[in-house]
Amino acid sequence: MTRLPRTKPEIPTPALLVDLDRLERNLHRLAEHCRANGVSFRPHAKTHKCPNVARLQIAAGAVGISVATVFEAEAMVQAGIRGVLLTSPLAEPHKVDRMVDLVRGGSEVLIAVGHAMEVDMLAAASSDLGPSALNVLIDLDVGDRRTGVQPGDEAVTLAQQIATKKSLRLRGVQAYAGHASHVVGFAERAMASQAALALAVDAKQLLKQKGFEADILSCGSTGTWNIDSRFAGVTELQCGSYVFMDIDYRRIGGSDNAPLFVDFEHSLTVLSTVISAGHADRVTVDAGIKAFSTETPFRAEAVDQPHLVYTRTGDEFGIITLGGPGALPKLGDRLEFLPPHCDPTVHLYDQLYAMRGEQVEAIWPIRARREN
Amino acid sequence: MTRLPRTKPEIPTPALLVDLDRLERNLHRLAEHCRANGVSFRPHAKTHKCPNVARLQIAAGAVGISVATVFEAEAMVQAGIRGVLLTSPLAEPHKVDRMVDLVRGGSEVLIAVGHAMEVDMLAAASSDLGPSALNVLIDLDVGDRRTGVQPGDEAVTLAQQIATKKSLRLRGVQAYAGHASHVVGFAERAMASQAALALAVDAKQLLKQKGFEADILSCGSTGTWNIDSRFAGVTELQCGSYVFMDIDYRRIGGSDNAPLFVDFEHSLTVLSTVISAGHADRVTVDAGIKAFSTETPFRAEAVDQPHLVYTRTGDEFGIITLGGPGALPKLGDRLEFLPPHCDPTVHLYDQLYAMRGEQVEAIWPIRARREN
Repeated sequence: MTRLPRTKPEIPTPALLVDLDRLERNLHRLAEHCRANGVSFRPHAKTHKCPNVARLQIAAGAVGISVATVFEAEAMVQAGIRGVLLTSPLAEPHKVDRMVDLVRGGSEVLIAVGHAMEVDMLAAASSDLGPSALNVLIDLDVGDRRTGVQPGDEAVTLAQQIATKKSLRLRGVQAYAGHASHVVGFAERAMASQAALALAVDAKQLLKQKGFEADILSCGSTGTWNIDSRFAGVTELQCGSYVFMDIDYRRIGGSDNAPLFVDFEHSLTVLSTVISAGHADRVTVDAGIKAFSTETPFRAEAVDQPHLVYTRTGDEFGIITLGGPGALPKLGDRLEFLPPHCDPTVHLYDQLYAMRGEQVEAIWPIRARREN
Repeated sequence: MTRLPRTKPEIPTPALLVDLDRLERNLHRLAEHCRANGVSFRPHAKTHKCPNVARLQIAAGAVGISVATVFEAEAMVQAGIRGVLLTSPLAEPHKVDRMVDLVRGGSEVLIAVGHAMEVDMLAAASSDLGPSALNVLIDLDVGDRRTGVQPGDEAVTLAQQIATKKSLRLRGVQAYAGHASHVVGFAERAMASQAALALAVDAKQLLKQKGFEADILSCGSTGTWNIDSRFAGVTELQCGSYVFMDIDYRRIGGSDNAPLFVDFEHSLTVLSTVISAGHADRVTVDAGIKAFSTETPFRAEAVDQPHLVYTRTGDEFGIITLGGPGALPKLGDRLEFLPPHCDPTVHLYDQLYAMRGEQVEAIWPIRARREN
């Protein structure tokens, strides 16, 4: 077989690269901020699906890793990660069995439950386990109307149901405000997130008043990292994208009204090659629909070459034209792009080239895309 | 580990399913049509990336399999597929080496070359092989301005260069009209495709007049399958999507002005589960940005449930609302969707559940997404 690439020019394209210096500064920045504000962090692995990145997050002080799917949970547990929190509700019996199997295998796992049927399924699947073997959070719907129960009576009702199940132990609540994460403008974003968090803190208080254990309040996105960390009652952040960053987050604006959100560095790029240059007004790169996420706007974000405009034109092709003064790249040239949205871009690849400058320091597998 | 699912209700979602009865009818339909029209077919594997599907295509009479990337070429060759045609140009030395390695290993491979640099690279990498060891086509740019040389003088110049390389053997031309495949309306589509094909046939004639071997004219998409097959001078079709179909192709309209293109059946679906149902106006399914291609419009194509409207709302979530009379599905219900665009949807999955009705007949790996 071909030997592994050792430098950037040897990497076959399109390829997903992470700059380790930038990644490490991002890891350090969130960790320091959380320590300074007395809040824990359990970063979300749906961004990277990569045990290597998860281990670095744990090494930086994370109390665990959040995951969106059972496949991600299994991959992280298999990689030796402790404190895995499944943040999405389950409604399939075999997936419930798989989560319970992780606990049966000795793993420390948390599950954010979103409805009464899930509580019944989890209890049935774990009935042979010891008392309080399965740690759960109540998933609260704090405004994005996507998953979870309403804070207030619905949350209390779910807590009462959980209390009747010997093998389950209620540990707190989850309140992900998906509708707040990408609000443009720091003040507007803070307002949206704080309104959601107020509901969650009240719900947690209500549960405690009713005598339930509810110590954990898990929440937060990269867009609200320095908002949620200062909100009294929040115990841990679930930020995911902060490790890589992307164009979608850059657009939301920073604190003190900065037009761009630059709290974290762009560590993730897509490397491509110019494979056709037969026209005066354009060249073709080998990065198309299968190389970049496509659900959000994406116009030319070639690193250090702002005069180039990218337009996708097929599974494996993108067209580069001029959007300002400068020259088109030449046949065989490499172009490196910032990803539009990091999570679904990562999902398009099987591995991540971990770069130290121009050197390939490691090749990290992206796991748990589905069943792998 | 969990035992493999044997029936549809046991399949963990989101999952990619292929209905084998429909797939087989699609395979048969294209094969019969090609036989009746005296044209060969070398269907495109960028649609499925699945050796199992490629083998069925070969069994149906395909002369080979087209591929878009070196990774796909390697996966198909490893699976024992003969007649692999790489349809995209190369500009990376190590990828050229990998293609030449396939030939060195005894594989029958065709490469559509798009520029002079590629000819030089291929010749240099294959100089130790025997005369005419490497079969090439000239990739023509017949209007989509994406890859290839212009038909006419540019094609002749490339042919002259190829003729100076001992190890290369020119076999013909490739003329993919990407701009014609999805033209809405049969007459308009036929006009666009025939204009492109006329350029390709003329170029092939010119090459023959100049004394070059140019027997192959490889072209065609699923949208132009019954247009290109009847165009004199065309020798083989590269249709890919016909095996699965998708919403993008359904929109283009059929012959005799039918509003929908129903020449092939929808064999591919995405299976999802309702995982949250806490609101009166909506439920949430577990299929989001990572479950469906997102570069083309997609509004609710739940199989047999046209009253449901789908809106993506995160990596792993989609919202279902009512768009007409009928009821919302319930928690735990399954919903099956037609894919917006099959190629990039397949690229999101690692395996394909091959279904015979409600039974899982096999689980097929999706290979060659990138380096796997």
